[in-house]
Amino acid sequence: MRISELSRTTGVPVATVKYYVREGLVPRGDVTSRTQASYGPQHAARVRLVRALSESAGLSLAAVREVLAVLDEPRSRHDLLGAAQHALLLDESGAGAPDADAQDPASPGVEDEATRRARRLAADRGWYEDPLLVHRLAGQLRAAAAADVPVADEHLAVLASAAEEAAAGDVASVPGEPSEALRQVVLGTLLTDPVLLTMRRFAQQRASAAGDGADAAPRAV
Amino acid sequence: MRISELSRTTGVPVATVKYYVREGLVPRGDVTSRTQASYGPQHAARVRLVRALSESAGLSLAAVREVLAVLDEPRSRHDLLGAAQHALLLDESGAGAPDADAQDPASPGVEDEATRRARRLAADRGWYEDPLLVHRLAGQLRAAAAADVPVADEHLAVLASAAEEAAAGDVASVPGEPSEALRQVVLGTLLTDPVLLTMRRFAQQRASAAGDGADAAPRAV
Repeated sequence: MRISELSRTTGVPVATVKYYVREGLVPRGDVTSRTQASYGPQHAARVRLVRALSESAGLSLAAVREVLAVLDEPRSRHDLLGAAQHALLLDESGAGAPDADAQDPASPGVEDEATRRARRLAADRGWYEDPLLVHRLAGQLRAAAAADVPVADEHLAVLASAAEEAAAGDVASVPGEPSEALRQVVLGTLLTDPVLLTMRRFAQQRASAAGDGADAAPRAV
Repeated sequence: MRISELSRTTGVPVATVKYYVREGLVPRGDVTSRTQASYGPQHAARVRLVRALSESAGLSLAAVREVLAVLDEPRSRHDLLGAAQHALLLDESGAGAPDADAQDPASPGVEDEATRRARRLAADRGWYEDPLLVHRLAGQLRAAAAADVPVADEHLAVLASAAEEAAAGDVASVPGEPSEALRQVVLGTLLTDPVLLTMRRFAQQRASAAGDGADAAPRAV
Protein backbone atom coordinates (compact mmCIF):
# COMPACT_ATOMS: atom_id res chain seq x y z
CA MET A 1 0.00 0.00 0.00
CA ARG A 2 1.02 3.62 -0.41
CA ILE A 3 1.81 5.88 2.51
CA SER A 4 -1.63 7.51 2.26
CA GLU A 5 -3.30 4.14 2.76
CA LEU A 6 -0.87 3.26 5.58
CA SER A 7 -1.98 6.49 7.24
CA ARG A 8 -5.67 5.68 6.73
CA THR A 9 -5.30 2.11 8.02
CA THR A 10 -3.49 3.14 11.18
CA GLY A 11 -5.22 6.45 11.81
CA VAL A 12 -1.81 8.13 12.08
CA PRO A 13 -1.29 11.28 9.96
CA VAL A 14 1.00 10.97 6.92
CA ALA A 15 3.41 13.56 8.35
CA THR A 16 3.74 11.54 11.56
CA VAL A 17 4.31 8.30 9.64
CA LYS A 18 7.02 10.03 7.60
CA TYR A 19 8.59 11.26 10.82
CA TYR A 20 8.62 7.73 12.30
CA VAL A 21 10.30 6.43 9.13
CA ARG A 22 12.83 9.25 9.09
CA GLU A 23 13.67 8.55 12.75
CA GLY A 24 14.17 4.86 11.97
CA LEU A 25 11.31 3.72 14.21
CA VAL A 26 9.41 2.25 11.25
CA PRO A 27 11.35 0.53 8.44
CA ARG A 28 11.36 2.17 5.01
CA GLY A 29 8.94 0.79 2.44
CA ASP A 30 10.01 -0.90 -0.80
CA VAL A 31 10.88 1.83 -3.24
CA THR A 32 8.58 1.61 -6.28
CA SER A 33 9.56 4.86 -7.98
CA ARG A 34 11.68 7.91 -7.30
CA THR A 35 8.94 9.43 -5.15
CA GLN A 36 6.97 6.45 -3.93
CA ALA A 37 7.39 3.47 -1.63
CA SER A 38 5.15 0.51 -0.90
CA TYR A 39 4.25 -0.56 2.64
CA GLY A 40 2.91 -3.87 4.00
CA PRO A 41 0.92 -5.01 7.05
CA GLN A 42 4.14 -5.23 9.11
CA HIS A 43 4.60 -1.49 8.57
CA ALA A 44 1.06 -0.83 9.78
CA ALA A 45 1.65 -2.93 12.90
CA ARG A 46 4.84 -1.04 13.65
CA VAL A 47 3.23 2.35 13.18
CA ARG A 48 0.44 1.39 15.61
CA LEU A 49 2.99 0.16 18.12
CA VAL A 50 5.11 3.32 17.99
CA ARG A 51 1.97 5.42 18.37
CA ALA A 52 0.74 3.47 21.40
CA LEU A 53 4.11 3.59 23.11
CA SER A 54 4.58 7.29 22.56
CA GLU A 55 1.01 8.44 23.18
CA SER A 56 -0.66 6.01 25.56
CA ALA A 57 2.39 4.86 27.50
CA GLY A 58 3.87 8.36 27.28
CA LEU A 59 7.41 7.37 26.30
CA SER A 60 9.86 9.72 24.63
CA LEU A 61 10.97 8.74 21.12
CA ALA A 62 14.38 7.84 22.57
CA ALA A 63 12.68 5.38 24.93
CA VAL A 64 10.49 4.02 22.13
CA ARG A 65 13.70 3.34 20.21
CA GLU A 66 15.16 1.45 23.21
CA VAL A 67 12.02 -0.65 23.55
CA LEU A 68 11.98 -1.50 19.83
CA ALA A 69 15.68 -2.47 20.03
CA VAL A 70 14.87 -4.90 22.84
CA LEU A 71 11.89 -6.26 20.91
CA ASP A 72 13.95 -6.77 17.77
CA GLU A 73 16.51 -8.95 19.56
CA PRO A 74 14.93 -12.07 21.06
CA ARG A 75 16.22 -13.53 24.36
CA SER A 76 14.90 -15.80 27.09
CA ARG A 77 11.85 -14.58 28.95
CA HIS A 78 13.73 -13.62 32.08
CA ASP A 79 16.59 -11.89 30.27
CA LEU A 80 14.08 -10.02 28.18
CA LEU A 81 12.36 -8.72 31.23
CA GLY A 82 15.61 -7.39 32.67
CA ALA A 83 16.68 -5.89 29.36
CA ALA A 84 13.32 -4.27 28.80
CA GLN A 85 13.12 -2.89 32.31
CA HIS A 86 16.55 -1.37 32.09
CA ALA A 87 15.84 0.20 28.74
CA LEU A 88 12.68 1.69 30.16
CA LEU A 89 14.09 2.88 33.45
CA LEU A 90 16.17 5.39 31.55
CA ASP A 91 13.12 7.33 30.61
CA GLU A 92 9.79 6.18 31.91
CA SER A 93 7.37 8.72 33.28
CA GLY A 94 7.11 8.89 37.06
CA ALA A 95 10.75 7.95 37.39
CA GLY A 96 11.12 9.76 40.68
CA ALA A 97 13.96 12.16 41.29
CA PRO A 98 16.81 10.66 39.27
CA ASP A 99 19.21 13.39 40.31
CA ALA A 100 18.46 13.02 44.01
CA ASP A 101 21.49 12.16 46.07
CA ALA A 102 21.28 8.63 47.46
CA GLN A 103 23.99 9.40 50.01
CA ASP A 104 23.25 10.72 53.44
CA PRO A 105 24.41 14.38 53.13
CA ALA A 106 25.43 14.37 56.80
CA SER A 107 27.65 11.30 56.34
CA PRO A 108 28.99 10.96 52.80
CA GLY A 109 29.42 7.35 51.75
CA VAL A 110 26.55 6.22 53.97
CA GLU A 111 23.29 5.24 52.29
CA ASP A 112 20.38 7.46 53.17
CA GLU A 113 17.27 6.23 54.94
CA ALA A 114 15.15 5.99 51.78
CA THR A 115 17.72 3.75 50.08
CA ARG A 116 18.02 1.54 53.16
CA ARG A 117 14.25 1.30 53.28
CA ALA A 118 13.97 0.33 49.60
CA ARG A 119 16.64 -2.36 50.08
CA ARG A 120 14.99 -3.69 53.21
CA LEU A 121 11.63 -3.93 51.46
CA ALA A 122 13.17 -5.82 48.51
CA ALA A 123 14.98 -8.19 50.87
CA ASP A 124 11.86 -8.81 52.97
CA ARG A 125 9.80 -9.56 49.87
CA GLY A 126 12.41 -11.78 48.24
CA TRP A 127 12.82 -9.35 45.34
CA TYR A 128 16.16 -9.09 43.55
CA GLU A 129 17.79 -5.85 44.75
CA ASP A 130 18.09 -4.44 41.27
CA PRO A 131 20.27 -1.32 41.69
CA LEU A 132 18.26 0.78 39.24
CA LEU A 133 14.95 -0.18 40.83
CA VAL A 134 16.30 0.43 44.34
CA HIS A 135 17.58 3.83 43.25
CA ARG A 136 14.27 4.67 41.66
CA LEU A 137 12.10 3.53 44.56
CA ALA A 138 14.32 5.36 47.04
CA GLY A 139 13.99 8.56 45.00
CA GLN A 140 10.21 8.22 44.99
CA LEU A 141 10.05 7.61 48.75
CA ARG A 142 12.36 10.57 49.30
CA ALA A 143 10.20 12.83 47.10
CA ALA A 144 7.06 11.89 49.04
CA ALA A 145 8.78 12.52 52.37
CA ALA A 146 10.15 15.87 51.12
CA ALA A 147 6.60 16.90 50.18
CA ASP A 148 5.64 16.14 53.78
CA VAL A 149 3.51 13.15 52.75
CA PRO A 150 5.76 10.29 53.87
CA VAL A 151 4.62 6.80 52.85
CA ALA A 152 3.88 4.93 56.09
CA ASP A 153 5.20 1.37 56.46
CA GLU A 154 1.69 -0.13 56.49
CA HIS A 155 0.71 1.77 53.34
CA LEU A 156 3.91 0.71 51.58
CA ALA A 157 3.27 -2.92 52.58
CA VAL A 158 -0.22 -2.86 51.07
CA LEU A 159 1.06 -1.30 47.86
CA ALA A 160 3.82 -3.92 47.71
CA SER A 161 1.25 -6.70 48.00
CA ALA A 162 -0.86 -5.09 45.29
CA ALA A 163 2.25 -4.84 43.09
CA GLU A 164 2.98 -8.53 43.66
CA GLU A 165 -0.58 -9.45 42.75
CA ALA A 166 -0.35 -7.40 39.53
CA ALA A 167 3.05 -8.92 38.67
CA ALA A 168 1.79 -12.47 39.13
CA GLY A 169 -0.97 -11.67 36.63
CA ASP A 170 1.54 -10.04 34.29
CA VAL A 171 3.81 -13.06 34.20
CA ALA A 172 0.89 -15.50 33.92
CA SER A 173 -0.37 -13.56 30.90
CA VAL A 174 2.87 -14.17 29.02
CA PRO A 175 2.42 -16.74 26.25
CA GLY A 176 4.82 -19.61 25.63
CA GLU A 177 6.52 -18.52 22.39
CA PRO A 178 9.54 -16.31 23.21
CA SER A 179 8.91 -13.62 20.60
CA GLU A 180 5.30 -13.18 21.67
CA ALA A 181 6.37 -13.37 25.32
CA LEU A 182 8.70 -10.44 24.81
CA ARG A 183 6.05 -8.30 23.23
CA GLN A 184 3.63 -9.16 25.96
CA VAL A 185 5.92 -8.42 28.89
CA VAL A 186 7.38 -5.21 27.56
CA LEU A 187 4.36 -3.74 25.88
CA GLY A 188 1.83 -5.27 28.22
CA THR A 189 3.50 -3.67 31.21
CA LEU A 190 3.92 -0.29 29.58
CA LEU A 191 0.42 -0.20 28.24
CA THR A 192 -1.23 -1.49 31.41
CA ASP A 193 0.63 0.82 33.84
CA PRO A 194 -2.00 3.51 33.15
CA VAL A 195 -4.77 0.89 33.32
CA LEU A 196 -3.65 -0.11 36.82
CA LEU A 197 -3.52 3.50 37.99
CA THR A 198 -6.94 4.32 36.54
CA MET A 199 -8.49 1.31 38.28
CA ARG A 200 -6.78 2.39 41.52
CA ARG A 201 -8.88 5.58 41.30
CA PHE A 202 -12.11 3.69 40.57
CA ALA A 203 -11.42 1.47 43.57
CA GLN A 204 -10.49 4.47 45.77
CA GLN A 205 -13.90 6.01 45.12
CA ARG A 206 -15.51 2.72 46.12
CA ALA A 207 -13.37 2.27 49.22
CA SER A 208 -13.78 5.89 50.25
CA ALA A 209 -17.56 5.77 49.84
CA ALA A 210 -17.68 2.57 51.91
CA GLY A 211 -15.69 4.29 54.68
CA ASP A 212 -17.93 7.38 54.64
CA GLY A 213 -21.10 5.30 54.54
CA ALA A 214 -21.90 7.51 51.53
CA ASP A 215 -23.23 6.79 48.08
CA ALA A 216 -20.44 5.59 45.79
CA ALA A 217 -20.74 8.60 43.48
CA PRO A 218 -18.56 11.53 44.52
CA ARG A 219 -20.39 14.83 44.24
CA ALA A 220 -19.56 16.82 41.13
CA VAL A 221 -16.76 19.34 41.48
CA MET B 1 14.23 33.90 55.94
CA ARG B 2 15.45 35.40 52.66
CA ILE B 3 14.90 33.71 49.31
CA SER B 4 18.49 32.43 49.31
CA GLU B 5 17.87 30.59 52.57
CA LEU B 6 14.50 29.33 51.31
CA SER B 7 16.39 27.90 48.34
CA ARG B 8 19.02 26.28 50.57
CA THR B 9 16.43 24.80 52.94
CA THR B 10 14.37 23.26 50.16
CA GLY B 11 17.17 22.38 47.77
CA VAL B 12 15.28 24.18 45.00
CA PRO B 13 17.30 26.76 42.98
CA VAL B 14 16.51 30.44 43.59
CA ALA B 15 15.44 30.91 39.97
CA THR B 16 12.94 28.05 40.29
CA VAL B 17 11.54 29.42 43.56
CA LYS B 18 11.11 32.82 41.90
CA TYR B 19 9.33 31.12 39.03
CA TYR B 20 6.93 29.31 41.40
CA VAL B 21 6.15 32.63 43.14
CA ARG B 22 5.66 34.42 39.83
CA GLU B 23 3.28 31.66 38.69
CA GLY B 24 1.29 31.96 41.92
CA LEU B 25 2.09 28.41 43.04
CA VAL B 26 3.90 29.66 46.14
CA PRO B 27 2.59 32.74 48.00
CA ARG B 28 4.68 35.91 47.97
CA GLY B 29 6.81 36.59 51.03
CA ASP B 30 6.33 39.58 53.33
CA VAL B 31 7.95 42.53 51.68
CA THR B 32 10.72 43.87 53.91
CA SER B 33 12.28 46.37 51.49
CA ARG B 34 11.96 47.40 47.88
CA THR B 35 14.05 44.44 46.75
CA GLN B 36 13.60 41.88 49.51
CA ALA B 37 10.90 39.67 50.96
CA SER B 38 10.85 37.40 53.97
CA TYR B 39 9.67 33.77 53.82
CA GLY B 40 8.52 31.40 56.56
CA PRO B 41 8.32 27.62 57.05
CA GLN B 42 4.96 27.52 55.24
CA HIS B 43 6.72 28.83 52.12
CA ALA B 44 9.35 26.11 52.40
CA ALA B 45 6.65 23.44 52.72
CA ARG B 46 4.85 24.76 49.67
CA VAL B 47 8.03 24.90 47.58
CA ARG B 48 8.79 21.26 48.47
CA LEU B 49 5.24 20.26 47.57
CA VAL B 50 5.29 21.99 44.18
CA ARG B 51 8.64 20.41 43.43
CA ALA B 52 7.46 16.91 44.35
CA LEU B 53 4.28 17.23 42.31
CA SER B 54 6.03 18.55 39.24
CA GLU B 55 9.15 16.40 39.36
CA SER B 56 8.33 13.13 41.08
CA ALA B 57 4.65 12.88 40.16
CA GLY B 58 5.39 14.40 36.75
CA LEU B 59 2.48 16.87 36.66
CA SER B 60 2.40 19.94 34.44
CA LEU B 61 2.35 23.29 36.23
CA ALA B 62 -1.31 23.67 35.18
CA ALA B 63 -2.14 20.40 36.95
CA VAL B 64 -0.08 21.40 40.00
CA ARG B 65 -2.20 24.55 40.14
CA GLU B 66 -5.42 22.45 40.04
CA VAL B 67 -4.18 20.21 42.83
CA LEU B 68 -3.21 23.17 45.01
CA ALA B 69 -6.63 24.74 44.41
CA VAL B 70 -8.31 21.56 45.66
CA LEU B 71 -5.96 21.40 48.64
CA ASP B 72 -6.66 25.02 49.56
CA GLU B 73 -10.41 24.46 49.78
CA PRO B 74 -11.34 21.86 52.39
CA ARG B 75 -14.31 19.49 51.88
CA SER B 76 -15.44 16.13 53.18
CA ARG B 77 -13.15 13.21 52.54
CA HIS B 78 -15.25 11.70 49.80
CA ASP B 79 -15.94 14.99 48.02
CA LEU B 80 -12.26 15.77 48.16
CA LEU B 81 -11.41 12.55 46.48
CA GLY B 82 -13.79 13.24 43.62
CA ALA B 83 -12.62 16.83 43.25
CA ALA B 84 -8.99 15.86 43.34
CA GLN B 85 -9.43 13.02 40.89
CA HIS B 86 -11.23 15.23 38.42
CA ALA B 87 -8.62 17.95 38.68
CA LEU B 88 -5.94 15.38 38.01
CA LEU B 89 -7.66 13.54 35.21
CA LEU B 90 -7.27 16.62 33.07
CA ASP B 91 -3.57 16.18 32.93
CA GLU B 92 -2.07 13.19 34.63
CA SER B 93 0.60 11.21 32.86
CA GLY B 94 -0.50 7.93 31.33
CA ALA B 95 -3.91 9.37 30.59
CA GLY B 96 -4.45 7.16 27.60
CA ALA B 97 -5.62 8.59 24.31
CA PRO B 98 -7.87 11.47 25.34
CA ASP B 99 -8.71 12.31 21.77
CA ALA B 100 -9.64 8.74 20.85
CA ASP B 101 -13.19 8.38 19.67
CA ALA B 102 -15.34 6.50 22.16
CA GLN B 103 -17.98 5.91 19.51
CA ASP B 104 -17.98 2.91 17.28
CA PRO B 105 -16.87 4.39 13.92
CA ALA B 106 -19.03 1.86 12.09
CA SER B 107 -22.15 2.82 14.07
CA PRO B 108 -22.08 6.44 15.24
CA GLY B 109 -23.89 6.91 18.55
CA VAL B 110 -23.08 3.37 19.65
CA GLU B 111 -20.46 2.89 22.36
CA ASP B 112 -17.41 1.04 21.20
CA GLU B 113 -16.28 -2.27 22.65
CA ALA B 114 -13.59 -0.73 24.90
CA THR B 115 -16.10 1.63 26.52
CA ARG B 116 -18.58 -1.21 27.04
CA ARG B 117 -15.81 -3.28 28.58
CA ALA B 118 -14.76 -0.50 30.95
CA ARG B 119 -18.38 0.00 32.05
CA ARG B 120 -18.92 -3.73 32.52
CA LEU B 121 -15.80 -4.01 34.66
CA ALA B 122 -16.88 -1.07 36.85
CA ALA B 123 -20.37 -2.56 37.24
CA ASP B 124 -19.02 -6.03 38.07
CA ARG B 125 -16.67 -4.61 40.69
CA GLY B 126 -19.25 -2.29 42.26
CA TRP B 127 -17.27 0.79 41.21
CA TYR B 128 -19.07 4.05 40.50
CA GLU B 129 -19.13 4.44 36.69
CA ASP B 130 -17.35 7.79 36.78
CA PRO B 131 -17.60 9.08 33.19
CA LEU B 132 -14.07 10.48 33.14
CA LEU B 133 -12.58 7.28 34.52
CA VAL B 134 -14.60 5.13 32.11
CA HIS B 135 -13.43 7.31 29.23
CA ARG B 136 -9.86 7.09 30.37
CA LEU B 137 -9.83 3.34 30.97
CA ALA B 138 -11.51 2.72 27.62
CA GLY B 139 -8.87 4.82 25.87
CA GLN B 140 -6.11 2.83 27.55
CA LEU B 141 -7.67 -0.52 26.61
CA ARG B 142 -8.15 0.72 23.05
CA ALA B 143 -4.52 1.86 22.82
CA ALA B 144 -3.26 -1.55 23.97
CA ALA B 145 -5.50 -3.36 21.50
CA ALA B 146 -4.40 -1.02 18.68
CA ALA B 147 -0.77 -1.87 19.47
CA ASP B 148 -1.72 -5.54 19.04
CA VAL B 149 -1.22 -6.26 22.76
CA PRO B 150 -4.84 -6.56 23.90
CA VAL B 151 -5.36 -6.89 27.65
CA ALA B 152 -6.93 -10.33 28.21
CA ASP B 153 -9.91 -10.60 30.57
CA GLU B 154 -7.95 -12.68 33.10
CA HIS B 155 -5.08 -10.19 33.11
CA LEU B 156 -7.47 -7.26 33.54
CA ALA B 157 -9.20 -9.06 36.42
CA VAL B 158 -5.89 -9.56 38.26
CA LEU B 159 -4.93 -5.93 37.75
CA ALA B 160 -8.35 -4.84 38.99
CA SER B 161 -7.89 -6.91 42.16
CA ALA B 162 -4.44 -5.41 42.66
CA ALA B 163 -5.92 -1.93 42.18
CA GLU B 164 -8.59 -2.68 44.80
CA GLU B 165 -5.96 -3.89 47.24
CA ALA B 166 -3.91 -0.71 46.71
CA ALA B 167 -7.01 1.48 47.08
CA ALA B 168 -8.02 -0.18 50.36
CA GLY B 169 -4.55 0.66 51.69
CA ASP B 170 -4.80 4.19 50.32
CA VAL B 171 -8.07 4.90 52.08
CA ALA B 172 -6.94 3.21 55.31
CA SER B 173 -3.86 5.45 55.34
CA VAL B 174 -6.00 8.59 55.44
CA PRO B 175 -5.92 10.24 58.87
CA GLY B 176 -9.03 11.48 60.66
CA GLU B 177 -8.63 15.28 60.39
CA PRO B 178 -10.13 16.52 57.11
CA SER B 179 -7.30 18.87 56.12
CA GLU B 180 -4.69 16.18 56.64
CA ALA B 181 -6.95 13.63 54.94
CA LEU B 182 -7.08 15.77 51.83
CA ARG B 183 -3.34 16.11 51.61
CA GLN B 184 -2.91 12.44 52.16
CA VAL B 185 -5.39 11.24 49.53
CA VAL B 186 -4.40 13.65 46.81
CA LEU B 187 -0.68 13.80 47.34
CA GLY B 188 -0.36 10.27 48.64
CA THR B 189 -1.92 8.88 45.48
CA LEU B 190 0.06 11.06 43.12
CA LEU B 191 3.33 10.42 44.86
CA THR B 192 2.79 6.69 45.29
CA ASP B 193 1.64 6.00 41.71
CA PRO B 194 5.30 5.71 40.68
CA VAL B 195 6.07 3.69 43.83
CA LEU B 196 3.40 1.15 42.87
CA LEU B 197 4.71 0.87 39.31
CA THR B 198 8.32 0.48 40.45
CA MET B 199 7.36 -2.29 42.86
CA ARG B 200 5.40 -3.97 40.05
CA ARG B 201 8.75 -4.30 38.22
CA PHE B 202 10.55 -5.65 41.29
CA ALA B 203 7.79 -8.21 41.69
CA GLN B 204 7.79 -9.07 37.98
CA GLN B 205 11.47 -10.00 38.18
CA ARG B 206 10.68 -12.23 41.14
CA ALA B 207 7.64 -13.85 39.50
CA SER B 208 9.46 -14.28 36.20
CA ALA B 209 12.49 -15.87 37.87
CA ALA B 210 10.20 -18.24 39.77
CA GLY B 211 8.53 -19.26 36.50
CA ASP B 212 11.86 -19.87 34.76
CA GLY B 213 13.31 -21.76 37.71
CA ALA B 214 16.16 -19.26 37.32
CA ASP B 215 18.05 -17.14 39.81
CA ALA B 216 16.11 -14.00 40.69
CA ALA B 217 18.72 -11.66 39.21
CA PRO B 218 18.15 -10.90 35.52
CA ARG B 219 21.35 -10.98 33.50
CA ALA B 220 22.83 -7.56 32.79
CA VAL B 221 21.83 -6.01 29.47
